[in-house]
Parts: sequence; C-alpha cells; structure tokens
Amino acid sequence: MSGAIFSDWMRSIQSRTETALANALPPLDLTPDRLHEAMRYAVLGGGKRVRPLLAHGAGLVTAAAPDTVDRAACAVELIHAYSLVHDDMPCMDDDSLRRGKPTVHVEYDDATALLVGDALQSLAFQLLAEPGLIPDAARQLKMVEHLGVASGSRGMAGGQAIDLQSVGQNISREALEVMHVHKTGALIRASVQLGALCGPTQDPDTLARLDQFSKRIGLLFQVVDDILDCEADTATLGKTAGKDARNDKPTYVTLLGLEEARRFAAELEADALAALGPLDARADMLRALASYIVHRRF
Amino acid sequence: MSGAIFSDWMRSIQSRTETALANALPPLDLTPDRLHEAMRYAVLGGGKRVRPLLAHGAGLVTAAAPDTVDRAACAVELIHAYSLVHDDMPCMDDDSLRRGKPTVHVEYDDATALLVGDALQSLAFQLLAEPGLIPDAARQLKMVEHLGVASGSRGMAGGQAIDLQSVGQNISREALEVMHVHKTGALIRASVQLGALCGPTQDPDTLARLDQFSKRIGLLFQVVDDILDCEADTATLGKTAGKDARNDKPTYVTLLGLEEARRFAAELEADALAALGPLDARADMLRALASYIVHRRF
Repeated sequence: MSGAIFSDWMRSIQSRTETALANALPPLDLTPDRLHEAMRYAVLGGGKRVRPLLAHGAGLVTAAAPDTVDRAACAVELIHAYSLVHDDMPCMDDDSLRRGKPTVHVEYDDATALLVGDALQSLAFQLLAEPGLIPDAARQLKMVEHLGVASGSRGMAGGQAIDLQSVGQNISREALEVMHVHKTGALIRASVQLGALCGPTQDPDTLARLDQFSKRIGLLFQVVDDILDCEADTATLGKTAGKDARNDKPTYVTLLGLEEARRFAAELEADALAALGPLDARADMLRALASYIVHRRF
Repeated sequence: MSGAIFSDWMRSIQSRTETALANALPPLDLTPDRLHEAMRYAVLGGGKRVRPLLAHGAGLVTAAAPDTVDRAACAVELIHAYSLVHDDMPCMDDDSLRRGKPTVHVEYDDATALLVGDALQSLAFQLLAEPGLIPDAARQLKMVEHLGVASGSRGMAGGQAIDLQSVGQNISREALEVMHVHKTGALIRASVQLGALCGPTQDPDTLARLDQFSKRIGLLFQVVDDILDCEADTATLGKTAGKDARNDKPTYVTLLGLEEARRFAAELEADALAALGPLDARADMLRALASYIVHRRF
C-alpha cells in the first residue's frame, strides 16, 4: 500500500472522528452551558486520534460499518480525553499546556476540569450503550464491559496510580512495563477490541491476532512517547517536553538509554506485524498504523 | 405494614449491599494495592445505602431476583460514592469529614482521591455490563445507558456544575429545582429505573408510576437534606453541618424558610405516594422508604 493511500485514510478517519465527537458532545446551548463548553474545549480540535484510527483499522478487518465504528471510536477517545484533563490537574502532573492550548483547569478552573473529566467518562459509556448500535446486544454489552475494564483500576486509572507511586523510584523494566500495560496499553487494546467487535466477521483466530497486535502497539506507543519526550522540544510536541525526566519519572529512555529504547521500539513493531501475520489486505491499515506510530513526531 | 418489617428489610438490604460491594470491589492484594485500598475505604462501612434501597424496592415491584438487583444497586452506589469523593476534594467543597471518617483526599492524598473517583465510575459501568446479568441483553444495555445519562453532564456531574455556578447567587426556586433534579435527582431516578429493569414484569404503566415516584423522591431527598443541614449538628450528621449556608449556597431552607421547606417536603411525600397509587403490596417497601426519607436523621 502506498503512503498516500494511508495518509488519505488517516485524514478521513480523523475528520469523521471530529464530526462524530462534535455530534456526540452536548451542544453549547444546553444547561449547564459552561460545562458543555469546557467538555468541547477538552475534546475537539486537536489530537492525532490514534485510538479512533486503531478502532477503524480493526473494524476494517471484521468488515464493520464505519458509522458503527465511529461510536466505538468516540467512546475510547472520550475516555482518553477525560484522562488527559484529570492528568493535567495540579494534584496530578500540573501541566498548563496540552495540544498547544492551555489545559482545561487553566482555561476554566480546577473544579470544572474535575467535572469535565467525570462527565466525559459517563458520556463514553452512555454512547456505547445506546441500544441497537450493533444487532447483537450481548456483543455490545461485551464492548461496554471491555471499556469499563480498560478504564478502571485494572486499566488506565490503575496505571496512573502505579505511575504516582513510581515517581522517584528505581523501578525495574518489568515494573515499568506493568505500569504502561495499565496506563496506556489497556485503552489502546480496548480501541482495537471495540473496533473489531463492531463488525459481523467474528472469527476467533482473527480476534486473537488483533488482540496480540494491540498489546504490542500499546507498549510501542509508550516507548516511542518516551523517546519523543526525551528528544522533542515544546514547540514540536505541543506539550511541555522533557517533563517526565524532570519530574523524576522512570521512562524507557532513562531505564534503557536512547539507543536501546529505539531498538526495543523496532522489535515491538516487528512483533506487532508478525501478530497480524496471515491476515489479508483488510489489515493493511493496521500495518501502516504500526509504522506511523513508530515514525510519528507528536 | 409494620415498622419492624420495614426495618428488618432495610437492614437486610443494607447488609447484602455491603457484601455485594465488598465482592465487587477489587481485592487488596491486587495491583495497584494502594488504589484498591482507597477505593474500599471510600465505599465500604458507611452510608445508609438509600439508592440500593430504592433499587431493591423497585425490584420488588417487577419481581426481580434480589441477586440481580444487587448488581444494579452496586452500580448506582459506586457512582454515588465516587461523586462524594470528588465532591469532597479541595477544588470542590473541600470537606475533611464524611460519614464520620476523614475524607479520601485527607486519609490518602488528592491525586489518589481523583483516581479513586475515576476508577469507581468505571467499575460501576463494568459491573452493569457484565453479559448475562438479565436474560434480555437489550434491556441490560438500556440500564447502562440510563446510568450514563444519570451520571453525566445532563445528570449528576451537570448538577455539580450548576451548583458551582450558583454559589453566592440569588437563584429562583425553579433554578434551585433544576440544580437538584440534576445533582441528586438523576441518580435517585436511575436507582429506581435500574432496579425495576432487573425484573421480568415490565408493565409500562407500572414503570411510568415508578418513574414519577422516583422524581418526587429525588427532590424530597434534597429538601430533607437542606432541612437537616440547617438543623443538625456535626455529631449527628457525620459530616460538617451548616456548611451549605456558610458556603453561601442556596438551599430550600434559605429560599423558603424552615417551615415552608417542611411543608414542601410533606407535599412531595404525598405526591410520591400518590404516584404509586394502585400498585399492590409489592410497592409497600417503596411507600415505607418515602416516609423513612422524610423522617431520617442523617
């Protein structure tokens, strides 16, 4: 597949995701309007939409209708967006810049940021539970359950808690992986699961391959994030760079060194592609996504 | 029905809710253990479990299996518990005492309190989505959707946002009602809806009556809360009393005066009972609950 085909697909998914999110978020003229404005501020107009891209890429493999995948993509992206809002708050990472804009608690206030995150999480589940999203209601419940597990104490929120406990600690490579499997990996895995569950082709071997792929991609995403955090300057990244190292947070770069971290990323990319193995051309967007994640500059 | 029968039922529901919550919460030996400990601290060993009582009361009307209602009851109680944890945080009400114990951010720290709330919300949806909770998966999705709406920006979180905006404002009785319909009313309504949806008897007229009942009860609960906040001392209430008035928050007592607030509570109780109207003795626990909510001392 040519790079141009992938770029076009990526832009089309990013564009339809923006539209779907704008439609899913409560309108500005609805009470409480300030909260709704802040929710839209937190979600719209930014981000590379990596999780929606993964959901749509997996949906292609199971022949899902893109309109259906939009809903799953919105759900995972809303969870991601809420986690950024809470993570940026003064009691967590205390960041003032996100995607080149003031963070929600800076633009509004701490209480509003707290409620924005809370309401975005509720909205994610509400969207995913709307009856009739897919014909098989039992499978739709499974999607909701996956999102719950991925977001909670054994997933993303748990990863944040492990992260808090690991500041200033000398942790092992295994412990670092446990943290990332929770913090970033769980929601990336859920993005692929939810996208795949949207389609009618529910072949167990294919689903197992997609799951293996998503686990590698989740870790890969974090390793590349650590590399970028070490390399990039604030202007390129759109967030305060080098912050993890300054905050004395363990990263793959501080643990392995820059070169070994890069080698590990290449290994994870190869493993991810191997997991997709014999799947036909319908998995090509996922293959291209793996490469995109390694070579991204954001 | 005698008061003793109601008291026994109430104690049995409170006890089985405590057990169900303890089983639903992640065990202490699971990573991240500190987060799981804080989640259990936030949820277990306290509270009158009004929402679980309403869910079980409604479940009686639709002949639901109590084990099934336990799950719905846990879901609404986890949402309630998370809202208390976030509401008590320094950037919101900044409360240090809850149910006679230090609040989560005091006992642990702000970041942990934030994550405890986030993870409790995820867990609520995860529990409710577990496939097979009721035989009708489409109806179970409706339960999840109701909980999403009740928790989000058009429900509880939205009510908190309206509350923030109304501090120090002279608001009308109508505006106060809009706030409470969102802040407390939505989740109380969902408690009744979810409990009712657990049962096999899904008669539309009965469900409509239960819904009317729950709307009155939601408002009643808040009016009584305002009366108690005005009357009670810290020892009786187990939380810092008179705080709303000191924080310059509008209440039914500041708006109507104590006597008129009491009269309004009596009117709401009568309306709630009238909504149940012709329903048979299976609705008696809900009838007794209405009276209990008016005469409670917590």
